[in-house]
Amino acid sequence: MRSRIVIVGGGFGGLRAARALKRARADVTLLDRRNFHLFQPLLYQVATGELSPANIASPLRLLLRHHRNCTVLMSDVRDFDVTRQVVLTDKSEVPFDYLILACGASHSYFGHDEWEPHAPGLKTIEQATEIRRRILTSFEEAERENNPLRQRALLTFAVIGAGPTGVEMAGAISEIARHTLRHDFRRIDPADARVTLIEAGSRVLSSFPDDLSQRAAEALHRLEVELLLDTLVTHVASDHLILKSAEQSEKLETRTVIWAAGVAASSLVGKLAGETGATVDKSGRIQVDERLNVPGNGNVFVIGDAACCLDRSGEPLPGMAPVAMQQGQYAARAIRARMRSRPVDEPFVYRNRGSMAVIGRYHAIAVIGKRHLSGFPAWLVWGLIHLREITQFQNRLMVMMQWAWTFFSRRRCARLITGEDSRKIPLDSSGENA
Amino acid sequence: MRSRIVIVGGGFGGLRAARALKRARADVTLLDRRNFHLFQPLLYQVATGELSPANIASPLRLLLRHHRNCTVLMSDVRDFDVTRQVVLTDKSEVPFDYLILACGASHSYFGHDEWEPHAPGLKTIEQATEIRRRILTSFEEAERENNPLRQRALLTFAVIGAGPTGVEMAGAISEIARHTLRHDFRRIDPADARVTLIEAGSRVLSSFPDDLSQRAAEALHRLEVELLLDTLVTHVASDHLILKSAEQSEKLETRTVIWAAGVAASSLVGKLAGETGATVDKSGRIQVDERLNVPGNGNVFVIGDAACCLDRSGEPLPGMAPVAMQQGQYAARAIRARMRSRPVDEPFVYRNRGSMAVIGRYHAIAVIGKRHLSGFPAWLVWGLIHLREITQFQNRLMVMMQWAWTFFSRRRCARLITGEDSRKIPLDSSGENA
Repeated sequence: MRSRIVIVGGGFGGLRAARALKRARADVTLLDRRNFHLFQPLLYQVATGELSPANIASPLRLLLRHHRNCTVLMSDVRDFDVTRQVVLTDKSEVPFDYLILACGASHSYFGHDEWEPHAPGLKTIEQATEIRRRILTSFEEAERENNPLRQRALLTFAVIGAGPTGVEMAGAISEIARHTLRHDFRRIDPADARVTLIEAGSRVLSSFPDDLSQRAAEALHRLEVELLLDTLVTHVASDHLILKSAEQSEKLETRTVIWAAGVAASSLVGKLAGETGATVDKSGRIQVDERLNVPGNGNVFVIGDAACCLDRSGEPLPGMAPVAMQQGQYAARAIRARMRSRPVDEPFVYRNRGSMAVIGRYHAIAVIGKRHLSGFPAWLVWGLIHLREITQFQNRLMVMMQWAWTFFSRRRCARLITGEDSRKIPLDSSGENA
Repeated sequence: MRSRIVIVGGGFGGLRAARALKRARADVTLLDRRNFHLFQPLLYQVATGELSPANIASPLRLLLRHHRNCTVLMSDVRDFDVTRQVVLTDKSEVPFDYLILACGASHSYFGHDEWEPHAPGLKTIEQATEIRRRILTSFEEAERENNPLRQRALLTFAVIGAGPTGVEMAGAISEIARHTLRHDFRRIDPADARVTLIEAGSRVLSSFPDDLSQRAAEALHRLEVELLLDTLVTHVASDHLILKSAEQSEKLETRTVIWAAGVAASSLVGKLAGETGATVDKSGRIQVDERLNVPGNGNVFVIGDAACCLDRSGEPLPGMAPVAMQQGQYAARAIRARMRSRPVDEPFVYRNRGSMAVIGRYHAIAVIGKRHLSGFPAWLVWGLIHLREITQFQNRLMVMMQWAWTFFSRRRCARLITGEDSRKIPLDSSGENA
């Protein structure tokens, strides 16, 4: 009988695993709640109106249409039964001989889940269009507002967390205010907008070397992003934040807050941990062994943001697409070897080809091998690499054109306010405090 | 003092009026609930995953950024006070000397508003992405379904109303099933899908001449669309329709129904009619005089789908973009003349340059002057005209590329299932009846 391989999640890790199993004599089933693979590194460009959702999302079926051994099922996975070797979905049980859990991560509000409605994170297409809606609506509301204090609050944008996503978002919002919307309003000057980037640590992009952090901070300064370092957020409400630094506690009146701070593994990971007795780290990720297995379960792999996998120096690997993809590739190879009863000898080793973050339109920082790049050269490298990567999933020409258009015209094609306001408290009533 | 001109609605009519007032020595205010102008003739391509919302929607501010006399306010208009000459919005009162009402139309369910959740119409971006979600989800559900009867219902699509929108939708759904999704599923064959187009009248596209109706019906037949003429829909539920023809009453099991039948003027039109004592026709449109004024109110114009405007033969003009645009142009000219106390002499006359409808990928019908075109030549004319028209608002290259891509690859770039299911009844439970 052919082995049954079930992959949960069609992100970078899961999709790579499914593709690497193309010629395996097995029945592969890929389960995902969504019908598309999302190119998450460019999600911030959807949130800021530069790209459309369809530019960075590709139907999983389309990507796997020529993988005849692979069935894609749009399913909500609810639980696992490792003894009976089945995955439980909303509709049925899916039996497996090998399981790859690649369900990714969501945001952590450090115990303050009540903040989420006021400060959405950026993990899904819906969150991206919601953030886009909020940013654009704030300018619209400001144009209509006569009270200068409320107008000020509407034109104040706060991004919490100065990791790559936070820096990208803050840079892009400032760019929108100072360039994209320049001639569009009659009663306000969008360039008056205040964009603050709030970070609990002492520097931006702390996963990068010191000198690049410094460069990034300078670039943010040139973009007129206000950087609040060593600053904690102690309260998030619909119309203000409370910030706390060593010197003082401060109230920041703002209507648009973006959460780019904490990451937590999805709740599914907890289900598998409970089922297998695996250890989880403080972010809820499953501690895997050097073969990416849940200890004691040689047929269960956990990869990507769902896994806590230590590198040779004992540090956990970062939650990045290249890590997930290499792990997906490894898991697929390990399963194929085991199917031939030849277990893989060498443990998983992450080959670090570098990392980068973009700040505004022309600026990025990058570590490639031992080289530190910043400014326009880094931005070019960033653009070329992302263009190469996204075309594994997407129509290269479309993305290139959209970028070229935004670049030269500074226009943003996807500046649409769509959908309903997801906040419970309407802007009008909460304005009374301002 | 400068005259104050208020335009309600940024569709084809309202936007054209605002643009035609560019050099008027007046303060123009354009009020719209949305921040974008929608190129509605291509909305069905969003509903069928061919174009992204941003391809057919352009920010009103961007379109009017160089119109220094024009202020765009994103506002929900609630009512009018014609005596005090103010428009009442959700936030404030906007005073006017001249008013142009161009708020368009929505769908009419002929007194059965309870059908709407089961059979959405196609007027807004949200409706288009919701219809796209339903069509794609049906295929996904069918792939997971083991019960053949339910699978059959999931693969049955019903479009109600065989006007241009209905014909476009039915043709495109059939195209998706038989070409786009061809290699994408493992358990179902999408080509088994049944696409029905239900029409109460005796022919499709009844606003066109007989011979072209006939051609359109033949083209639909080749696309394997099942045409049910002289058939009334007497009930719409979450999982079936009841159809009634001269011979029989029939139950059609389907999970995806699209409403393309009735049109009703927006409720705002009723407010203005009540305020001015104007007559409304059976679709709720205001009967305007030959100068597009509400009788007795020389400073209030109603244009586009909100107006019932008779042509020389006494027939009401159809609800089409060219009518609205010519009316917008006329209203702007009339207001400019009146501001100079030189009222316009000639009444509004619609210059009919033709009309067309598209059926599938290569086929259209068109009436241009006295010429009747059908098939590929008509489709080419349709494509060129729409390309020319949309580029008044959009980036020509982007739309051309997207079309070329879909045309040659038969892929559809925007096949995303996003957002929440807007139906109250979950598919799973309602499936019990099937």
